[in-house]
Amino acid sequence: MSKGFFDSSDSLRAARPLQHAKRVTFEEPLSLELGDRLPEVTVVYETYGQLNAARDNAVLVCHALSGDSHVARHHSQDDPGWWDTVVGPGLAIDTGQYYVLCANVLGGCRGTTGPNSVDPATGRRWGADFPTVTVGDMVEVQRRLIDHLGIPSLLAVVGGSMGGHQVLTWATRHPERVRGAMVLASSARLTSQALAFDVVGRNAIRRDPHFHEGQYYEAAPGPSVGLALARMLGHITYLSPQAMSEKFEADRLLPRDVPTSFEKKFSVGSYLAYQGDKFVERFDANSYMTLSMAMDLFDLGATPEELAENLAHSQCHWLVISYTSDWLFPAEQSQELVKVLLALNKPITYCNVKTSCGHDAFLLPDDLGTYGRLLTGFLANLEGTKNMPAEAGEELERPNSTSTFQPHRVDCDRIVDLIPPQASVLDLGCGRGELLTRLKQNGHGRLLGFELDEQALLTCVEQGLNVIQGDLDKGLPAFADRQFDVVVLSQTLQAVKNVELVLADLVRVGRKCIVSFSNFGYHKLAEILAEQGRVPEASLLLHFNWYNTPNLRFLTIADFEEFCAEKNIRIHQRIAFNTEEGREVTGEVNRLANLAIFVLSSGEAMNLSGSHPE
Amino acid sequence: MSKGFFDSSDSLRAARPLQHAKRVTFEEPLSLELGDRLPEVTVVYETYGQLNAARDNAVLVCHALSGDSHVARHHSQDDPGWWDTVVGPGLAIDTGQYYVLCANVLGGCRGTTGPNSVDPATGRRWGADFPTVTVGDMVEVQRRLIDHLGIPSLLAVVGGSMGGHQVLTWATRHPERVRGAMVLASSARLTSQALAFDVVGRNAIRRDPHFHEGQYYEAAPGPSVGLALARMLGHITYLSPQAMSEKFEADRLLPRDVPTSFEKKFSVGSYLAYQGDKFVERFDANSYMTLSMAMDLFDLGATPEELAENLAHSQCHWLVISYTSDWLFPAEQSQELVKVLLALNKPITYCNVKTSCGHDAFLLPDDLGTYGRLLTGFLANLEGTKNMPAEAGEELERPNSTSTFQPHRVDCDRIVDLIPPQASVLDLGCGRGELLTRLKQNGHGRLLGFELDEQALLTCVEQGLNVIQGDLDKGLPAFADRQFDVVVLSQTLQAVKNVELVLADLVRVGRKCIVSFSNFGYHKLAEILAEQGRVPEASLLLHFNWYNTPNLRFLTIADFEEFCAEKNIRIHQRIAFNTEEGREVTGEVNRLANLAIFVLSSGEAMNLSGSHPE
Repeated sequence: MSKGFFDSSDSLRAARPLQHAKRVTFEEPLSLELGDRLPEVTVVYETYGQLNAARDNAVLVCHALSGDSHVARHHSQDDPGWWDTVVGPGLAIDTGQYYVLCANVLGGCRGTTGPNSVDPATGRRWGADFPTVTVGDMVEVQRRLIDHLGIPSLLAVVGGSMGGHQVLTWATRHPERVRGAMVLASSARLTSQALAFDVVGRNAIRRDPHFHEGQYYEAAPGPSVGLALARMLGHITYLSPQAMSEKFEADRLLPRDVPTSFEKKFSVGSYLAYQGDKFVERFDANSYMTLSMAMDLFDLGATPEELAENLAHSQCHWLVISYTSDWLFPAEQSQELVKVLLALNKPITYCNVKTSCGHDAFLLPDDLGTYGRLLTGFLANLEGTKNMPAEAGEELERPNSTSTFQPHRVDCDRIVDLIPPQASVLDLGCGRGELLTRLKQNGHGRLLGFELDEQALLTCVEQGLNVIQGDLDKGLPAFADRQFDVVVLSQTLQAVKNVELVLADLVRVGRKCIVSFSNFGYHKLAEILAEQGRVPEASLLLHFNWYNTPNLRFLTIADFEEFCAEKNIRIHQRIAFNTEEGREVTGEVNRLANLAIFVLSSGEAMNLSGSHPE
Repeated sequence: MSKGFFDSSDSLRAARPLQHAKRVTFEEPLSLELGDRLPEVTVVYETYGQLNAARDNAVLVCHALSGDSHVARHHSQDDPGWWDTVVGPGLAIDTGQYYVLCANVLGGCRGTTGPNSVDPATGRRWGADFPTVTVGDMVEVQRRLIDHLGIPSLLAVVGGSMGGHQVLTWATRHPERVRGAMVLASSARLTSQALAFDVVGRNAIRRDPHFHEGQYYEAAPGPSVGLALARMLGHITYLSPQAMSEKFEADRLLPRDVPTSFEKKFSVGSYLAYQGDKFVERFDANSYMTLSMAMDLFDLGATPEELAENLAHSQCHWLVISYTSDWLFPAEQSQELVKVLLALNKPITYCNVKTSCGHDAFLLPDDLGTYGRLLTGFLANLEGTKNMPAEAGEELERPNSTSTFQPHRVDCDRIVDLIPPQASVLDLGCGRGELLTRLKQNGHGRLLGFELDEQALLTCVEQGLNVIQGDLDKGLPAFADRQFDVVVLSQTLQAVKNVELVLADLVRVGRKCIVSFSNFGYHKLAEILAEQGRVPEASLLLHFNWYNTPNLRFLTIADFEEFCAEKNIRIHQRIAFNTEEGREVTGEVNRLANLAIFVLSSGEAMNLSGSHPE
């Protein structure tokens, strides 16, 4: 963790007035999703950068539970913003290029209408009479704001956690006004575990004897104990176990000397006490109840079918980011979203950022090298004005290039030729996107990569390619039957452990499939084994030996053909090369070729026999 | 989860009097570890089964935070016990064989001296004046009890969670009185995350306005809100996210109609409200503070060195069990204990039980098939009276037998011959313990297996073998340099992905190492490749094909010898077989042998050159 003992996410932010905040009041009543009605709505917001003449460079940032409109400093002397690491001139969301906009949410306590606002009907603060609001209501208020600002459509909407819920709502409720949706550390709805933590937090507030059914504004101290307890609990869920251990293990029994009425026997206790007390100074308990309830009620769909129904409306490009150590919004939840978006053929990139920072990761600088680059690359390609090629001199080779005789170029050339114009293509193990980039240049439409390596994926995103991060050995559960015209598995089969699963999914997902691999039956390899007594892999691969090659499977063309026959996979075409001699070979290919490319399809789906041609 | 909506671990237990509890008061003052003193101590306990004539069949069960002496029913009409699934006639801890004993802990609220007991000096209940007690103090009181009962030494001490802390304390403080220590879902000390949850729970109690600095006994209602909040929070941490999802997702918005003042908008909310309210009826808030603080203060060592210093005193056999989905006491913590016990050469078996039940798993019936069998097998072999062989007709073959030509028997016979009498032996990938059983029969001393497969491990334990569950591909970080006279890696090298890591650790841990593998240089294999154009694996292995064989690495004798030379591994002996012809071969072994056995050691450790002999 890069922050000091008492820092965490946005908790250190001052309760001081927001000096750069603007305010607008909409006097038209707001009908809320659950039936109530607000007679008027005030919105407090901040803006950064300039709206361009085309009015198409606006990026709406949606804050999380305890955030506000002050997303970043406006100048070096300004109070810190909650996303200073990401938003600013030259930063991941570059305020030199984009007009960045952030508003305090409906139900919040930093200026926008919420429980601590005065109800014009009674002249008193709303308190617990403030109606239950939903994430949809928050987004409706934001929509009024962009109308007011004369922004026809947003280049992008971005947010983490509850902010991600708002992004999902924007993209599905106002599809025509969102070109890019960036969802960080979020989900279609909370896990039961996350919901349970919220329940305990709200109970701590509700049962605080100073809560007075929410009408505590005139009676100090208000439910400060309950709110502090809720915040302490929240803090635990925002950090990963590993981050907590790194922060508190070394001096477990040496608490900081903080002035508090809470327990401070342990180091972590003094931290929680400090965070709890501090939060009470700047946040309103009714807002905490209101916003956490909005999160708990947020539900884009409990089943893939319901989710699909909602997400089907979206027309934007998607960037979904999860964080490996986030247990409050676990990666599986983002993957559920991704799966449905894929099934709907929405353009999407997904990355599960490897980090030890937990849910807070999206707020911290530690992993900016990944998620910041993703945001930048995604935004740049949304604009359509930029296309960042790989740096000059940098070769676009696969990080896991595992082929005998390195016949990668031959392979790629031939595969490009095999793919019909306009075909949709999924490239499994796409590496840095060499094949996809060539296809894109050729004018192909729907292209998608699938890659495990984070760095390779980043390169793809910066080239404007859509990529899904995933492990091929787990199969392709995220993809629908016959979803792509062509699925490519180039020089990757040898590194796959679950061959049967992967090949079954391959022919399920692709109408046509192109598989290339090194032929272990090549006569020179057999000779090495017979004459030198060495496993050929050890002799022929430049960088690897038998004990460290990424290749785990060895097969010949004959082996593969038998496999296809047994598994009812239809072989449409077989191309065999001798890359040493630089030529295509025919006849005794199993002996003469060192590289084979097969064009396949599912025998079953077509009701054809599984026998292969030639 | 096999239980109903409102059931969870021991939470449904009645607050009714414990009908079968016995009570003893020790009038000698008790000096507490942190300096305070109790003028006298009363202990409430229950016993099951009969103490035998030799007084050596006593099993002490240590309860967790919210448990008590009523570990199990005494008869079918009795109130349920908290470990009814495990303790009883014919059950995993068989009260027909063992004299089972369980006492309410010091600081508890079910009869043993605790904060709700009367302080004889004042005539008032202790309340918050009850001194801070440690797990060591709890164990000291249990020691008085077994002295009182005339039990010279315990066959075993067993407990989960805080019960595990007591087991660790017993084994290290009273080593001469414990023959077996069974530690379930526990650790040497809490994670910072677990500690943080305890802090929040105690703060909820402490800041409840009805807490009255702990003197609430005369003033209803007491800190019931705070205690209920602490319990709700505890419940979340006892369940895995998956278990919560299974329990509450289907009817998320359909709470049960429970009479409560807590929020019950969501299904999980009504569950937590119910559990919180119910707990208040049967548990004392001061006890909750006292016991959770004892857990938080428990610290057998923050570093491996400190841990080793404490664990070095133990003289018992160890059984350590963790549960894969337990995030409150994560498996890594048990593995830390295991690592130190291994380094100390203590007899130990470890299993990380695969389960979705979370921390509660040790209380639930779901995984009894594993952890119950472990308890039973471990206890049976402690007695020294039983030695359960594999069932008749069941072959003790390795579950992952991956050898070409199945030369397993030849291999095993020869390896047994190669191991000097009395040598300590670590068998990596020991399967069901075939080799170790034969060595045991031959009178070998310190034998240990290492195996990933749970069922294979269970078979080993039931045969009285010590086994550590682990994944060979992660190397052998748990083992010290030169810890064993002989380390065996028999017919497993081919299935290892991280060959360099595993072989480096092999020669680090073993003074001598025996490695056997199938020789891919065998002329028949080369012929199959050259003449039939098929990868031999596909033709020769009975049960597997090139695409599904567990073998991921292919090597020849020559490859292996080159590897050893490069890595400075000394080859002491090479034995080559042709198992088809049933004979040892010499000369052109790389062509003639299909199986090779090597005896190796680290070249470095011996300051010898890495070149190999012959």
